[in-house]
Amino acid sequence: MTLIDGRAISKAILEAVTADVAPLRAAGTTPTLAIVVPTDDEATAWYVRSIARTAAKAEIVVRQIDLHEATADELTAELDALSADEGVHGIICQTPLPKGVTLDQVGQHIAVAKDVDGANPQSLGRLAAGLPAFAPATAQAVVEILQREQVPLSGTDVVVVGRSNVVGKPAALLLLAENATVTICHSRTRDLATHTRQADVLVAAVGRARMLGAEHVKPGAIVIDVGTNPTEDGQLVGDVDTEAVEPVVSAVTPVPGGVGPVTTALLLRNVVAAARA
Amino acid sequence: MTLIDGRAISKAILEAVTADVAPLRAAGTTPTLAIVVPTDDEATAWYVRSIARTAAKAEIVVRQIDLHEATADELTAELDALSADEGVHGIICQTPLPKGVTLDQVGQHIAVAKDVDGANPQSLGRLAAGLPAFAPATAQAVVEILQREQVPLSGTDVVVVGRSNVVGKPAALLLLAENATVTICHSRTRDLATHTRQADVLVAAVGRARMLGAEHVKPGAIVIDVGTNPTEDGQLVGDVDTEAVEPVVSAVTPVPGGVGPVTTALLLRNVVAAARA
Repeated sequence: MTLIDGRAISKAILEAVTADVAPLRAAGTTPTLAIVVPTDDEATAWYVRSIARTAAKAEIVVRQIDLHEATADELTAELDALSADEGVHGIICQTPLPKGVTLDQVGQHIAVAKDVDGANPQSLGRLAAGLPAFAPATAQAVVEILQREQVPLSGTDVVVVGRSNVVGKPAALLLLAENATVTICHSRTRDLATHTRQADVLVAAVGRARMLGAEHVKPGAIVIDVGTNPTEDGQLVGDVDTEAVEPVVSAVTPVPGGVGPVTTALLLRNVVAAARA
Repeated sequence: MTLIDGRAISKAILEAVTADVAPLRAAGTTPTLAIVVPTDDEATAWYVRSIARTAAKAEIVVRQIDLHEATADELTAELDALSADEGVHGIICQTPLPKGVTLDQVGQHIAVAKDVDGANPQSLGRLAAGLPAFAPATAQAVVEILQREQVPLSGTDVVVVGRSNVVGKPAALLLLAENATVTICHSRTRDLATHTRQADVLVAAVGRARMLGAEHVKPGAIVIDVGTNPTEDGQLVGDVDTEAVEPVVSAVTPVPGGVGPVTTALLLRNVVAAARA
């Protein structure tokens, strides 16, 4: 059984990203990521600091815009301005959003060329259609980890549990583009374990702590755990009961230290790609 | 075993569409569909005449634009002009396209509000994100038939064979939105029959004559056959070997007379919806 080392994968990606930044800066372009923080949320502030630290190491500039409890109009005006700002290459808008505002609404105000976390429905559509676009970094991380672990995807039976616009659906589309046979399960799926036990590769993106256990996995399966669920004692746990599945599967990503760090690295890789475009 | 009557479903939809047109015309709006025909293709000309005939019965105006062998620039200029034309409510561009032109390229020149056959990747993205948009009429027809046949979709195991942008992917997204558990199979799928035999509802959208037979279906399954494959003797056959599956399944759509007429009716329903918007 392999516990997949997301931090090591992240490090390898960031080394390549850093190497790509140097010539850009030498040519006068400073890759810049704008992070819009629309609410005063503690967990978000922590996550933004973590991105900023990682970006700084790669010599990518992070411009953090704190809107405090913004209205929808303030938020979309800011995103429009950043979309038009030539000094900004990537834009992300942190959740939670102000009340009554949806991610799709704000996503439409992020220019597709700067939409480094795939929040604009247009990016999802281009992705679905097989056109160049940035996928949500978390969905990208799923595929990147599988590729770096040299898991063959063509013809492989993949089951994605969860159908959110930010993870489940885009991950399914990316895996389909890699020629996997993809099944999308969700809360209404009947007899979930029957489906997940057929998966050569199981992607858990539900957002429910440790909901997938030994009875949900096929012997030898590869399990990618996208969940990050806070526990009462301030820890983070995944959607997968890692200890329970370890004796059955051939590899699993831990939480923390799995998909999370790879996501941040890919977000920054997208910023550099946007800066180069 | 039921042979699902697509013509009867089409008739019922068209009656409702016709009833919706009358008040629109009374209020001064004549629902108008522009059909751009970019090449001199015999089968296309036949299909366009068939849409025009059906539209005429519903008092929807069809404006046919024959570009003969158009260049990419001529084609996109025409679509831009129609997108801006207030007298046009729906726009479709027939295939085949001129050499070197892709459907995605032309789709981007059809305004989303007039994209009644879901050709713009933005429409697909909005669909994937759960936002209002027109899906390709063929994909809509799959869901419409299932709903009119009162097939419960929530929690149902649906297998879609085929992953095209015009049928397989949008049909999978629409079925997912109906809370089905959806598996997408394709040419690289290993052991296709193992997957399709698990389907309560099987959607065949491959484009290979009679490739799915008795060994591919579960007893009692509902089979929707999207294929329209011309035979050497000038007939049309589906992707499903209808005679072979009849003793096994509980219902199947015939070809012709299944998905096809429903698709045309839904295309016209979309035009009326666009005219009303």
